[in-house]
Amino acid sequence: MFCRLVEDFTVSWRFRQLSHNTTQCTSTSAQLSLSALHWCIAASMLPVVVVHGGAGHIPNKRAEFSCAGVRAATRGGYAVLRGGGSAMDAVVEAVTLLENNPIYNAGCGSVLNEQGVEMDAIVMDGRTLASGAVSAVKGIANPVQLARLVMDKTSHLCLTADGASQFARAMGVQEVPEESLITDYARMRWRKNLDPDSNPVECQMGKMGTVGAVAVDLEGNVACATSTGGMLNKMEGRVGDTACIGCGGYADNRAGAVSPTGHGEAIMKVTLSRLILFYMEQGRSAQDAADEALVYMRERVQGLGGVVVVDPHGVWAARFSSRQMAWAAAQNEQLHYGLYAGEDFTQPIQDPDVPHTPSQEGR
Amino acid sequence: MFCRLVEDFTVSWRFRQLSHNTTQCTSTSAQLSLSALHWCIAASMLPVVVVHGGAGHIPNKRAEFSCAGVRAATRGGYAVLRGGGSAMDAVVEAVTLLENNPIYNAGCGSVLNEQGVEMDAIVMDGRTLASGAVSAVKGIANPVQLARLVMDKTSHLCLTADGASQFARAMGVQEVPEESLITDYARMRWRKNLDPDSNPVECQMGKMGTVGAVAVDLEGNVACATSTGGMLNKMEGRVGDTACIGCGGYADNRAGAVSPTGHGEAIMKVTLSRLILFYMEQGRSAQDAADEALVYMRERVQGLGGVVVVDPHGVWAARFSSRQMAWAAAQNEQLHYGLYAGEDFTQPIQDPDVPHTPSQEGR
Repeated sequence: MFCRLVEDFTVSWRFRQLSHNTTQCTSTSAQLSLSALHWCIAASMLPVVVVHGGAGHIPNKRAEFSCAGVRAATRGGYAVLRGGGSAMDAVVEAVTLLENNPIYNAGCGSVLNEQGVEMDAIVMDGRTLASGAVSAVKGIANPVQLARLVMDKTSHLCLTADGASQFARAMGVQEVPEESLITDYARMRWRKNLDPDSNPVECQMGKMGTVGAVAVDLEGNVACATSTGGMLNKMEGRVGDTACIGCGGYADNRAGAVSPTGHGEAIMKVTLSRLILFYMEQGRSAQDAADEALVYMRERVQGLGGVVVVDPHGVWAARFSSRQMAWAAAQNEQLHYGLYAGEDFTQPIQDPDVPHTPSQEGR
Repeated sequence: MFCRLVEDFTVSWRFRQLSHNTTQCTSTSAQLSLSALHWCIAASMLPVVVVHGGAGHIPNKRAEFSCAGVRAATRGGYAVLRGGGSAMDAVVEAVTLLENNPIYNAGCGSVLNEQGVEMDAIVMDGRTLASGAVSAVKGIANPVQLARLVMDKTSHLCLTADGASQFARAMGVQEVPEESLITDYARMRWRKNLDPDSNPVECQMGKMGTVGAVAVDLEGNVACATSTGGMLNKMEGRVGDTACIGCGGYADNRAGAVSPTGHGEAIMKVTLSRLILFYMEQGRSAQDAADEALVYMRERVQGLGGVVVVDPHGVWAARFSSRQMAWAAAQNEQLHYGLYAGEDFTQPIQDPDVPHTPSQEGR
């Protein structure tokens, strides 16, 4: 695998956190050839996992928890990768942790509509283009795990509504009471949304908390996973971008992996995840491709959002056009994280988590 | 609008059926400038509608009806365009005619699963990237019209299952008994599929009858529509490519419009419709882009299928990697049609339909 990386590697690439490891590598042997150096550089980039906790406007009181949650999920995904787990294992682990965390709009914490909680999730394996998704599913704790079962255990790519629930039962996935998925915060937002003076568009648009992850494992395989409760007060049966391959996620070993968040209908109109990977296929870096696609989405369909992106060599980006996006990444035993544009805080991944809220004043 | 066409027009293009109209135009005035000639050429390409009735293996007994049906649907869509209707109006009209025709796997004639009939449909407007879709919907005659209502009357892009049915009721769409959608042929295939000696994969894969259409109207706007009963004996709630934007259809005035048919899960893995338009954005013709994407789908994920494609200037293609695809196109008052690779029969569109079955021996 690393041979392929070495062949593909060009020195014109932009990459992060490389100098430290490059120095380590070159100092261990003065005889390293350029190819071996490239091998060393490429190897040092893997594994990597990048996680987001949703783009939009995150109330101050919740920002600290949101940032801590994505850091914890990133540590979880990275531990899987460092233990030799696959990129798919890592993204499912990270998103499961986020679904279980009531701070996010996915799994426990999902927003409400008249039907209660209806959730969407997707996974995709860049090695084979295999994918699994569920849409408008109810009464399960971890839709991302059900999406993976769709991929692994059926010949289909997407199951919806009652069909998804029936499949969950057939797979022995435990049903959970809907009440266990509904938080006080979700109830408060639902009540506020019903207020005659509320602005339903503002209620829907501002506070997005879709979660997602992308990863590259030690073998250079990429994967993505995304999970969401959707949009507050959405119509019954509304399916957003998350369950739609190419929109709510895409992964291809030949290009990279993307998990988006933001205004689902806008993401769908521009097939955001596939668009970013097309740009990368044309030679753009993960960051440039993400920025270009987010600008396009804003200008063409007036949509805001964010993405985490990784290429098969471990070059990654966390970019957003919304006010905030809680994100974290793990690579080279370092944890990166941020909330506002321009932030990239780092700490050794083995250090205990610091209850630190990134802010625009933080730099 | 034609100014834009003239600016974009390059003489290196490949186009069909141009000589006749160019001659007509130039003979009317010896003073035509090159730009005016281009205007004339571009204008002569529009409007156009291209229709398919599904890729796969069409039994001999059904081939004649399948070909006649796509010709009739094409005439219907073309009449809308010639009357000044929009590309969206035309593709919905064409697909409605195909849904109402029991020969196809869409609307009346849909394949069965244990739940009976579950249908998917999508429309997309290339002017605004607006789109509407329904998935796993039951008990309505024309899912494509419901998909258009999702686009026109909601802020969402996709409604699924019971939510789609509830929306249909709210819109006053008449519910129809499921029996009215089930044909004797669909029942026969279902019974055959249940036979202990049957090969379920062969039953599912060979006979696809998804229907779709793409069009460009006189103003140069493109649109697509696709509708299907899905895959025989699919799991309850299985959503295929048709309801998934970028997979089962895509339309963008900057590139063109695509409606595919074939193995839905393979189409989803490569986001076939969006892929073709990416190729066209990179300069490939509609035909070359379709061929390249179909080869990619076969090689990467072992999927067969077909597509109808049009670009905003009226250059169109009907291409497939399966054994057959019933298709027809209308442009310049000519009707084109075919069933096997390489066929392109033509007749004046005002001529009465000839009960002619294209075949490999037909040329």
